Amino acid sequence: MVKIAIDMMGGDDAPGIVLEAVEKAVKDFKDLEIILFGDQNKCDINHGRVEVRHCTEAITMEDEPVRAIKRKKDSSMVRMAEAVKSGEADGCVSAGNTGALMSAGLFIVGRIKGVERPALVLTLPTVSGKGFVFMDVGANADAKAEHLLQYAQLGNIYAQKIRNIEQPSVALLNIGTEAAKGNTLTKKAYHLMEEQQGFHFSGNVEAKALMDDAADVVVTDGYTGNMILKNLEGVAKSIGKMLKSTLLSSFKNKLAALVLRKDLNDLTSKMDYAEYGGSVLLGLNGIVVKAHGSSNAKAFYSAIRQAKVAGELNIVNTMRETVGTENG
Amino acid sequence: MVKIAIDMMGGDDAPGIVLEAVEKAVKDFKDLEIILFGDQNKCDINHGRVEVRHCTEAITMEDEPVRAIKRKKDSSMVRMAEAVKSGEADGCVSAGNTGALMSAGLFIVGRIKGVERPALVLTLPTVSGKGFVFMDVGANADAKAEHLLQYAQLGNIYAQKIRNIEQPSVALLNIGTEAAKGNTLTKKAYHLMEEQQGFHFSGNVEAKALMDDAADVVVTDGYTGNMILKNLEGVAKSIGKMLKSTLLSSFKNKLAALVLRKDLNDLTSKMDYAEYGGSVLLGLNGIVVKAHGSSNAKAFYSAIRQAKVAGELNIVNTMRETVGTENG
Repeated sequence: MVKIAIDMMGGDDAPGIVLEAVEKAVKDFKDLEIILFGDQNKCDINHGRVEVRHCTEAITMEDEPVRAIKRKKDSSMVRMAEAVKSGEADGCVSAGNTGALMSAGLFIVGRIKGVERPALVLTLPTVSGKGFVFMDVGANADAKAEHLLQYAQLGNIYAQKIRNIEQPSVALLNIGTEAAKGNTLTKKAYHLMEEQQGFHFSGNVEAKALMDDAADVVVTDGYTGNMILKNLEGVAKSIGKMLKSTLLSSFKNKLAALVLRKDLNDLTSKMDYAEYGGSVLLGLNGIVVKAHGSSNAKAFYSAIRQAKVAGELNIVNTMRETVGTENG
Repeated sequence: MVKIAIDMMGGDDAPGIVLEAVEKAVKDFKDLEIILFGDQNKCDINHGRVEVRHCTEAITMEDEPVRAIKRKKDSSMVRMAEAVKSGEADGCVSAGNTGALMSAGLFIVGRIKGVERPALVLTLPTVSGKGFVFMDVGANADAKAEHLLQYAQLGNIYAQKIRNIEQPSVALLNIGTEAAKGNTLTKKAYHLMEEQQGFHFSGNVEAKALMDDAADVVVTDGYTGNMILKNLEGVAKSIGKMLKSTLLSSFKNKLAALVLRKDLNDLTSKMDYAEYGGSVLLGLNGIVVKAHGSSNAKAFYSAIRQAKVAGELNIVNTMRETVGTENG
C-alpha cells in the first residue's frame, strides 16, 4: 500500500480537477491510499481509501512563498508536507504556488543529508515521443559545478527508476558539443562529470538537439533550465498561433484544416509536457510532485501516479544511499 | 559612397553565393563599393565598383579561431578586417568561422575605448513579423552586470539607427517579470538598467514572450543568448519535422498538404531569421557583420545591405560618443 498526501486547494481549477483525479486514481490503483488536505466542505468524495483532513487556510498564487509556508500553518500545502515529513505519507502532490511548494519541500520535508541543493525535474517531449529528463528547471537560479554534478546523480536515479532506463545517458546542456565550450560553470561541471564513475556521462548537448533524443537526462542550472522551458512553451505556442492563422486564412485552407484536424490535435498533445506528469523536487527526504498550475484532471492524475510509483520504488532511499552522505 | 570589405572564402557555399550576392548588391546600390578578398582565380566579377584583392590563404570552419587570426596573415578574413582597421573600408561581411571572425573583430578591428566586451547582435522573428534585436548571442559566454548594461546601450543605438525605432523599449531576458526574479547576474543588471537614463528600460521579459513583440531590444549574457537561439532553431525544426510527417501520413493529408503548401512555405520563411540579415559584432571600431554559415545568396545580400546601412549612418561613431569613454 502506498499513501500519498494531496493538496486539494492548489491550482487554477482546484478543488474540482483535484477531486476528479483522486477519484480516478483510487479506482485504478487498488494499492493506493490518499490523504486529502483542504476545505472539507468543498469535498464530496466518499471512499474507503480517501481520508479528508480539514484545513482552514490555503496558499494562493500571489502569496510570497517562504512567508506563506512559515505563517499559514493550517494551510493545505503545509499540512500535506508535514504528512510526508512525519513519514505518514510516502509522497505528496500539489498544483499550487510553485515557489511555496519548493519552500515546503526545503523547510518542512527537508533535504537529504549531503544533497546541497534539491532540483526540479521534468520530463520533456521529444519528436520520437520518447522524452527526456530535464533538470534543474528552476529550483535554484544560481548553481555551482558541484550542484550540477549532484543533479546528474539524482537525474540518473530518476531515469533508472521512474523511466525504466537501465543505463541512462546523462548529458550537460551547453552552447557547444566540445569539452572546451561553455561558460565558467559548464566547463567546470564538464570536468567533474567526466571524472566520476556513478553514471554514464555522454558529454555536452546543445539546445537545438534537445528534442531529438540527444540524451536520457539533461542537466543544467535552474536559470538556464527555466529559460529553456519557457522558451519551448513560447515557441510552440507562437508556431501554433501562426499555423492556426494560416489554416483559417482562406476557404481552401479551412477545408484542408478540416481534413487535418484530428492529426494536428494529436501533434499538439504530443508537444504538451503536461502529458508526461508533473515536475518533481529531487534531493528531499520525501517525494514532492508539482502538478502543472493549469492542470486538467488528466495531468493531475498523471502526477498522482508519478508520486505513487516513486513511493513504491522508494527512490528517496536510493538517492539517500547514492548521493547522500548519511551512510557514506 | 560606402565601401564594404568582403570575405569571399567564408561559408558553406563560398565563393559562389558570395559573388552572386555581391553582383546583386552593386547593381542595386549605386553608392556601394566592394573590396573582395580571396582567391582571384575563383572570382569572375568584372565591375567598376568591385575591386578584387588576391589572398593566398583561407580560414576554415575547423580552424582554431585565435590561432587562425594570428597565423593566417594572408587569409581573406584577416585582410578584410585589416581594411576596416585602416579605415579603407567602412565595414566588412563574412560567412566564415564565427569564432575567427569575432577574434578578427577584437584583435584586428579593435574595441571602442570604454566598451569592455563587444556583443553579437541578431534580429529575431516575432509572430507579427516585426522582429526584435537580441544580444549577446555568443560573443562572451560569461558576462558581468556592467557588460549587460553596455549591451543594452549598444542595442538601443542599433535599434534606433538600423531598425528605425525612435525610442526602443529595451528589456532584460529573465526567468520572471518581477524585479526580484532571476539569478545573481540578472538581479544586479536589472538595478543597473533601472538607474540609467540613456535608454527606455522596460523591465524583465520571459523567454516565452520573446516572439510576441515583448520588447524592441532584449539583452542577455552570451551563454543564455546562444542557448535561446539554438533552442529556437531546434524547436522550429522539430515542429516542422513533426508537421511534415503528419502531412505525409495519409492520402487525405497529402491532398490537404498540397492545398496548404504555398502558405506553409511562407510561414517557414517568416520563422527564418536569416531573412533579417546577419549578426553584427557591436562595440568595435568598425562594422563587422557575420552572414549565416549556411547563407544563401539572398541572406548574404541582406548582410551586405546591413553593413552598408550601418556604414552610411555611422553607427560606430554614435556608439563611440554614447558608450565609449574617449570623449567622456
